[in-house]
Amino acid sequence: MTEATRILLDESRIPHNWYNIVADLPVPPPPILHPATSRPVEPDDLMPLFPVELIDQEASAERFVLIPASVRDVYRLWRPTPLIRARRLERALGTPARIYYKYEGGSPSGSHKPNTAVPQAYYNARQGVGKLVTETGAGQWGSALAFACAQYGLECEVWMVRASYDGKPGRRSLMRAYGATVHPSPSPLTAYGAEALAHDPDSPGSLGIAISEAVETARAEPGTRYALGSLLNHVLLHQTVIGEEAIEQMAAFGEAPDMVVGCTGGGSNFAGLAFPFLREKLAGRMAPVIRAVEPAACPSLTRGVYAYDFGDAAGLTPLLKMHTLGHGFIPDPIHAGGLRYHGMSPLLSHLYELGMFEAVAMEQNDCFEAGSRFARSEGVVPAPEAAHALAEVVAEALRCRETGEEKVLLTAVCGHGHFDLDGYDRYLSGRLEDLSLPQDRIDTALAGLPSL
Amino acid sequence: MTEATRILLDESRIPHNWYNIVADLPVPPPPILHPATSRPVEPDDLMPLFPVELIDQEASAERFVLIPASVRDVYRLWRPTPLIRARRLERALGTPARIYYKYEGGSPSGSHKPNTAVPQAYYNARQGVGKLVTETGAGQWGSALAFACAQYGLECEVWMVRASYDGKPGRRSLMRAYGATVHPSPSPLTAYGAEALAHDPDSPGSLGIAISEAVETARAEPGTRYALGSLLNHVLLHQTVIGEEAIEQMAAFGEAPDMVVGCTGGGSNFAGLAFPFLREKLAGRMAPVIRAVEPAACPSLTRGVYAYDFGDAAGLTPLLKMHTLGHGFIPDPIHAGGLRYHGMSPLLSHLYELGMFEAVAMEQNDCFEAGSRFARSEGVVPAPEAAHALAEVVAEALRCRETGEEKVLLTAVCGHGHFDLDGYDRYLSGRLEDLSLPQDRIDTALAGLPSL
Repeated sequence: MTEATRILLDESRIPHNWYNIVADLPVPPPPILHPATSRPVEPDDLMPLFPVELIDQEASAERFVLIPASVRDVYRLWRPTPLIRARRLERALGTPARIYYKYEGGSPSGSHKPNTAVPQAYYNARQGVGKLVTETGAGQWGSALAFACAQYGLECEVWMVRASYDGKPGRRSLMRAYGATVHPSPSPLTAYGAEALAHDPDSPGSLGIAISEAVETARAEPGTRYALGSLLNHVLLHQTVIGEEAIEQMAAFGEAPDMVVGCTGGGSNFAGLAFPFLREKLAGRMAPVIRAVEPAACPSLTRGVYAYDFGDAAGLTPLLKMHTLGHGFIPDPIHAGGLRYHGMSPLLSHLYELGMFEAVAMEQNDCFEAGSRFARSEGVVPAPEAAHALAEVVAEALRCRETGEEKVLLTAVCGHGHFDLDGYDRYLSGRLEDLSLPQDRIDTALAGLPSL
Repeated sequence: MTEATRILLDESRIPHNWYNIVADLPVPPPPILHPATSRPVEPDDLMPLFPVELIDQEASAERFVLIPASVRDVYRLWRPTPLIRARRLERALGTPARIYYKYEGGSPSGSHKPNTAVPQAYYNARQGVGKLVTETGAGQWGSALAFACAQYGLECEVWMVRASYDGKPGRRSLMRAYGATVHPSPSPLTAYGAEALAHDPDSPGSLGIAISEAVETARAEPGTRYALGSLLNHVLLHQTVIGEEAIEQMAAFGEAPDMVVGCTGGGSNFAGLAFPFLREKLAGRMAPVIRAVEPAACPSLTRGVYAYDFGDAAGLTPLLKMHTLGHGFIPDPIHAGGLRYHGMSPLLSHLYELGMFEAVAMEQNDCFEAGSRFARSEGVVPAPEAAHALAEVVAEALRCRETGEEKVLLTAVCGHGHFDLDGYDRYLSGRLEDLSLPQDRIDTALAGLPSL
């Protein structure tokens, strides 16, 4: 154990490979199914949406995938990210536990999302694609892709859920500063959006509608492809730079984690941190407990079922075997917009079924309490998503205070909360509610699962 | 010259001393005068406002001032900050110049301000002070002090100019997240604020009024002191960690700057970068041109006079010999709120008179153009204040493109622009105006200079 607070690595230590956990699984993950035929999708089915390399990565069983030199070169703008020992938080909690966090909020767009946005833009640019389209909720993914497209001279068009477009002007403007075009969704620019507007001119939108608008545009426009910020295997793959760096940095601290904790929405941040540690665990080189933290308002792992479901609300995507609350489930408007998704990454869902990690659900007031505590001791104001992981870390550290255990806890602060301060304001003024989620709301949504 | 993009230093390389340029000046700076007597202020006059150590530092002529271990320990949360070669900006500009920037936006509150907020909180806490009060415009200083007070268990009360309080809710909430109390100014809580409200119940406030409210509170409440975020010698002193680290990092790049460029409002960021390089220049170890960039809307160096003037609009402070537009000058509401101040640091003003640096003024559209260009190539969206320095760096790099000179340009990006994105939005949509500043507005304000 060193006396250091931050372990920085110079840019030569950016990983040379992404880690593909599929290579190390005892059982391969179930295939993606074509909704019309209920048969596994073929690579050709995905060609209108994604470039060849990403389709290959989606189905790859190779253990390591070489990171292109051009992508590593862009990563140098902010990677390796620091691994920090939260000494001041430990003191504030009076815990014998040692708390470490990998800080991803220092990236250009302020979260872990550029780790995959950059390679996605790169592979598309190399294939001659001129424009990427996507959807975004609170804007973390959209701003990451806008940044990445600016790096490769690609146009970028983003459909942003109207409620966020109106209520979170900061991230909307951030996308524009990077040169992207941003539309509120539903928009009159697509058939699906126009239909939604005809149905309800004042629609606040949803991620499901926004996905449909982006996918429709990608299919209709030549030279345009679609990009997704979570959920799929290739996205999780790109995020493993987080865990690979963390392994080296924990070793520099002279530590091995007893517990690795991450927040889960679609799952990309959690997987990015956890997969390399799971590899080490499978190989018997360390033995951390791995724990996912999801919002109580959107508990796909802890209260969902494991079944084939659509990725979007409209039912336009291929079928994914995943933990889901039903594609018709509409989560309450908690502040952690990045965790408001009805399903969980199929690959993570498969690992969960294999018993490779645990999951707990957290109420948002507990998360904002942990986030505020973290801000006052460590300085960084965490995004509400990251505050979910921190709430569990704080809870575990307080359990250690009771038991006297000197556990080593590791988490990732996947983004800063600069665009989420209204949530902190509400929490601090006692205006934040924890809404219970009655079982019948889940049951109703699950009744709409597609039959195969 | 290395092939590196970022030079990171580990925390052992945080400077052990602040550098006091007063020790190396051929002529000592003029004294601060008491407004009632027009005689130099005595340390005792400042005791109701500042702790002893800061009063000592204000008048010190020692070349180096030891940074307390506790302050270095808090600095470890984000220092040393990275020095980055802007390779992608160079390519975008097609310039043979090599551009380097010291990035201070990764601090907890997002700017260089915590460099002085932390020692100010430390010295006050050590003297048994229980609460610090201050004013803030756009909130960069207030959020830095709120963070620093949280580190030392001090209460923090901030008067925030009402126009910003209403229009910039993000930084207001950030201060609250750190545990500070924030009031819109003018407020009914002070005699001066109540008077201002009686005069105009809808007053948008001004930095001058907010200073008066904070100073009045510090004087009235036992155990409470005042803290200032720029202008004074001790504030500039604390910021020299920026330049000290940059000297080591430029050496690691194998470079010496031909030009050092910084933005100036009160002057603390510019001085923090420039003073250590000026020491090296005075000693003949390097020979950079040093250039300050101020807003055309508030050109204290390029269009002001060098005279004794008040630090606040109400005329309550001691008299400072400085470049000033007159304490009654109200700058147009440009987006770089941190540069909207009628005067310039007395120490910097003295150096300017001695010919130790140059100054230019920039229109804000040119600054936002440079800021957008920087964001798209380097990823970081700079604060509008930092964009002033970048506008001059871009202009110089384009001059190098004409001449073929391979100049080495160094600047500091003193903060990120996450809370200033409305300004970018206005710029990008062509709604940002450059307002000319007629000479008669300056003349009118200068007519109100105090007579000695």
